[in-house]
Amino acid sequence: MLSKEDNLAVSRVGPGTLMGNLMRQYWIPAMLSSELPRPDSDPVRVLLLGEKLIAFRDTNGQVGLMDHNCPHRGASLFFGRTEECGLRCVYHGWKFDVSGTCVDMPNEPAESDFKQKIKANAYPTTERGGVVWTYMGPRAEPPPLPDLEPNSLDDSVELLDAIQRECNWLQALEGDIDTSHFSFLHFGAQTVDQARPGTFQYYALNDRAPRYSVLDTDYGAMYGAYRPADPGYLYWRIASFLFPFYAMIPPGVLGNQIVARAWVPMDDEHTLFFNMQAGRTRRPVGPSGPSGVTGLEKLPNTTDWYGRFRLVSDARNDYRIDRQRQRERHSFTGIPGIHTEDQAVTENMGPIFDRSSEHLASSDVMVIRVRRKLLEAARALAEDGTVPYSVEHPEVYRQRSGGVILPEDADWVEATAELRKAYVDHPEIDAALAGLGAL
Amino acid sequence: MLSKEDNLAVSRVGPGTLMGNLMRQYWIPAMLSSELPRPDSDPVRVLLLGEKLIAFRDTNGQVGLMDHNCPHRGASLFFGRTEECGLRCVYHGWKFDVSGTCVDMPNEPAESDFKQKIKANAYPTTERGGVVWTYMGPRAEPPPLPDLEPNSLDDSVELLDAIQRECNWLQALEGDIDTSHFSFLHFGAQTVDQARPGTFQYYALNDRAPRYSVLDTDYGAMYGAYRPADPGYLYWRIASFLFPFYAMIPPGVLGNQIVARAWVPMDDEHTLFFNMQAGRTRRPVGPSGPSGVTGLEKLPNTTDWYGRFRLVSDARNDYRIDRQRQRERHSFTGIPGIHTEDQAVTENMGPIFDRSSEHLASSDVMVIRVRRKLLEAARALAEDGTVPYSVEHPEVYRQRSGGVILPEDADWVEATAELRKAYVDHPEIDAALAGLGAL
Amino acid sequence: MLSKEDNLAVSRVGPGTLMGNLMRQYWIPAMLSSELPRPDSDPVRVLLLGEKLIAFRDTNGQVGLMDHNCPHRGASLFFGRTEECGLRCVYHGWKFDVSGTCVDMPNEPAESDFKQKIKANAYPTTERGGVVWTYMGPRAEPPPLPDLEPNSLDDSVELLDAIQRECNWLQALEGDIDTSHFSFLHFGAQTVDQARPGTFQYYALNDRAPRYSVLDTDYGAMYGAYRPADPGYLYWRIASFLFPFYAMIPPGVLGNQIVARAWVPMDDEHTLFFNMQAGRTRRPVGPSGPSGVTGLEKLPNTTDWYGRFRLVSDARNDYRIDRQRQRERHSFTGIPGIHTEDQAVTENMGPIFDRSSEHLASSDVMVIRVRRKLLEAARALAEDGTVPYSVEHPEVYRQRSGGVILPEDADWVEATAELRKAYVDHPEIDAALAGLGAL
Repeated sequence: MLSKEDNLAVSRVGPGTLMGNLMRQYWIPAMLSSELPRPDSDPVRVLLLGEKLIAFRDTNGQVGLMDHNCPHRGASLFFGRTEECGLRCVYHGWKFDVSGTCVDMPNEPAESDFKQKIKANAYPTTERGGVVWTYMGPRAEPPPLPDLEPNSLDDSVELLDAIQRECNWLQALEGDIDTSHFSFLHFGAQTVDQARPGTFQYYALNDRAPRYSVLDTDYGAMYGAYRPADPGYLYWRIASFLFPFYAMIPPGVLGNQIVARAWVPMDDEHTLFFNMQAGRTRRPVGPSGPSGVTGLEKLPNTTDWYGRFRLVSDARNDYRIDRQRQRERHSFTGIPGIHTEDQAVTENMGPIFDRSSEHLASSDVMVIRVRRKLLEAARALAEDGTVPYSVEHPEVYRQRSGGVILPEDADWVEATAELRKAYVDHPEIDAALAGLGAL
Repeated sequence: MLSKEDNLAVSRVGPGTLMGNLMRQYWIPAMLSSELPRPDSDPVRVLLLGEKLIAFRDTNGQVGLMDHNCPHRGASLFFGRTEECGLRCVYHGWKFDVSGTCVDMPNEPAESDFKQKIKANAYPTTERGGVVWTYMGPRAEPPPLPDLEPNSLDDSVELLDAIQRECNWLQALEGDIDTSHFSFLHFGAQTVDQARPGTFQYYALNDRAPRYSVLDTDYGAMYGAYRPADPGYLYWRIASFLFPFYAMIPPGVLGNQIVARAWVPMDDEHTLFFNMQAGRTRRPVGPSGPSGVTGLEKLPNTTDWYGRFRLVSDARNDYRIDRQRQRERHSFTGIPGIHTEDQAVTENMGPIFDRSSEHLASSDVMVIRVRRKLLEAARALAEDGTVPYSVEHPEVYRQRSGGVILPEDADWVEATAELRKAYVDHPEIDAALAGLGAL
Repeated sequence: MLSKEDNLAVSRVGPGTLMGNLMRQYWIPAMLSSELPRPDSDPVRVLLLGEKLIAFRDTNGQVGLMDHNCPHRGASLFFGRTEECGLRCVYHGWKFDVSGTCVDMPNEPAESDFKQKIKANAYPTTERGGVVWTYMGPRAEPPPLPDLEPNSLDDSVELLDAIQRECNWLQALEGDIDTSHFSFLHFGAQTVDQARPGTFQYYALNDRAPRYSVLDTDYGAMYGAYRPADPGYLYWRIASFLFPFYAMIPPGVLGNQIVARAWVPMDDEHTLFFNMQAGRTRRPVGPSGPSGVTGLEKLPNTTDWYGRFRLVSDARNDYRIDRQRQRERHSFTGIPGIHTEDQAVTENMGPIFDRSSEHLASSDVMVIRVRRKLLEAARALAEDGTVPYSVEHPEVYRQRSGGVILPEDADWVEATAELRKAYVDHPEIDAALAGLGAL
């Protein structure tokens, strides 16, 4: 549990908040590149860390991201014209380039130098792997982009997706560093005899109460959750939290799985989840519903602040729960799709769950550690300007996560050092998986 | 009128409020038994005194009612599985019985005793007469259920209904203890020559400004409203307020009518009205609309917190008012149905009406008395823990209300003592009514 | 820019606020007469300066406007019966005349004098030129109605319209005293070679950065915006702000155009715009959309507080913007209709734009002046009861606005004195315009 005060401190991300200031030290995934498909395509409303922004792609292909209110008298730049290398406000014709510089002010007399005094509040952007990144922090020169492998392997990005979640970013993220829920929320209806002996799934269903080992890292925190595999061996699920809002989850095979999941706050009560996965990764297949419902069906995007990447399955339809399927154990939840199951539990805690009423168990050690690290880092920044090590060291993000079988007496950290390195080929794993078929 | 402070004090019912604490001394009607039709039927969202709860019926038929947030990390138990005598949270599989005891914690190691330390915040329940009652108060051993006759006569309950009202509970209840509005809101368009001489209706239309006698009782307060009947006689309408939110209304025949109406706060701005009536009761028939519209048509229940027992006629359609019918005096209001007329006036005062702007008349003596008694009782509880007499004396609820003709010089309290007793047969009244036909 | 404090002070209009008190010194346009088409027609909900009121037309044709809550116990008079010269509350039958006097209290005993003690909070009304005016201020005897010409010329009112805007009244009004936006928002896509030489339009497109002259007046403030016309001449656009919320705009011909625009606050975040125009006025024709969409299409009125005079084009459909038309410069905004373009920019600043983040340019001198005058007047009233001169001098509203060509060395104020006078015939202008055709 957290005190009510700590709970709000770790949850709120608007300008000037403790956690908001911490996040603004980092590059942040703002949108998909595909949302701005062409030079001078239509401007897009982007809600990010509680700030209302307008994104546009200029004539050269550069992405601009700036306050939606024109610095003049506040007209929304959403209605702006994308013109030759800039966005022109329709109210009085002021035009801004992607850096926020006012490049034209046609309603001022020719001799006026007022234009030089005006700058729109624009954030630098860059694009990589289909994601538009932005830096909303105080530095004139932004730090480097984090070396997130699935966002860096140019050709191999197989899956890039964005999904909105209607709750605070942290309670969404906590699902990713809580391996314990996997055997219940997603696979609770399956019994061990339904699994093939010798697979991760078999071990996970055979023992649903793993032990945990958690350690601090220079990027955040890492845990290994272990339980018996075949005699003399343990099945380890290894996963990480990476500052400020990333998770690498454990379902795949360590050394093979390439994944990073970003839980980017739109505001305190809405989160945009970016799933970045690379080609060697296999995805866990969860129970889907009847008639092919996967739970990932999306509503069409609208132009609203909250209109991007919403699922059809949401609180308004109880996530299309099928109580009959739940009752008959076709599914533990009756909700089609793993991701939707996660949406259901985290959204329905309430917009910002009050953690002062929690009762944390031994399976929550990683959750506890991550909250503490976030609060410590946010407070160190507030107190004396200390910036987390990861801000300026992109290489610490070169991580992989996943499952592995180790001898009982192995040191899990040491034994997995090579497998946890990003940008490394492990042909032996590919070969083994090819022989094994689906996990 | 009330001061703004007293007005909020008497209206608000959340945990820790003055009035909320008073109500939590009593058993409270939470839902209809029929909302949980079968053992292990689907969980139901119940909003009660501002608390978000989940109701379920376990395998043995027992009803559980507990906080919707799992005590672990807050996942909503709405999505929970009703399993062998308990409700299992889908997030990590923790299972609770109807008492809130954690009976299974499968994600903890077998040797862990953490389960013993966890208790969901569950409220005791019991069922009687089609109603699920709960006790949300501080006692380990709840007080007895109130002896409400229409809820106790096992076979004779003819009418049990629940209807949501979108306003504070007290302004809804006040309509029930305000006999004066009857001759206007409901029968204002009727003239005395349309009524049959010698009936209650005739007297009520002949004199629309009754006098009042109000007295304190051990269950709350009672009034008699009187006006001339035939020469030498008075027509008395006798009704009661019973702690903390019940009314017994006067339209029927005293001694024959068996009714109790509960105005149960869902939260400060929504009320669930339970109408409990027994078989010997005749219901007043008010003006209904054209095409058989009664105003009691309901929307289908949904699973939302506010989705239970909503009328089709509501503020969004002006209660299906027909201005033409109103103008032509087919109806005083143009709104079809007595209950809907009441909904219209009380809901449209605003969610919590500011009583500091009232101007109370002589017809409001009962309303004034009830507010004062509620505030006194709530403050006595807050100051020194004094609990109203009615909490521990269920027999005080053995009351009936209704109309009666008495000689001018009769003492109305004494003369009606027998007729006001619950659980009593009055075959002479039945015989008289059978001869009289409809009132 | 304004400080956050000044910004709220100049924006908020509820009872007891600085600006609300100032506005209540004046008569206020409350609704269209046509909203109450007949004696005893249906009551109408009217939201005005944050107050919820009910309007009705009595049997004699007089308009009543009073608090929607009955002074008794708060039932909404919306459901009231319009009966012989009064509005009768349906709850207990209390009846009020247009002055708020309680003329019947049928649920009180005949000998009661309580009726004399009750008065509904009713505001005096009067009608002129199709508008229902009300006085919500403290005087027993209201001041005179302002001599607004287009509202006073009985037969010549050609255009009277009301349109709701979903933002604060002042940011809506500011568009009207900001002549600079005209050449961009409304005509930004047109080039000077598309205009006929010698017309206002030609000069406006030839020089989109006019200079400004602003002066205080006894009714508020006036400005002239000037730019070159033919050699030796200037094109002047002359317009006014008139206390407390009127604008006379400059598009037409000075001396010919008869217009007044009222930006009446419904509450702090909703405004009802009244456009009053008289017969001699020509309206500027802006770019409309394809298929005849003008942007002025309205939704049917409903009975809601916010249900009156809403446009089909609104924030929920991005004002039916057509990005393709915007891109191809068929229209600067892609939004069909001048008025809708104004709605789009002012509404999307946010409900009450925070002016502390503005950067005002030389084109904003009139906006700056008007804000200062409003704050000064509101504070003078608060400090020592000083009432603006215009409250008691209706003749100061006898103004006209519009465009005019003057010799370069003319004193614009002196030279236009005659043309700016209301209620004056200028047959020479009519003749000239007849010869000229459309501007």
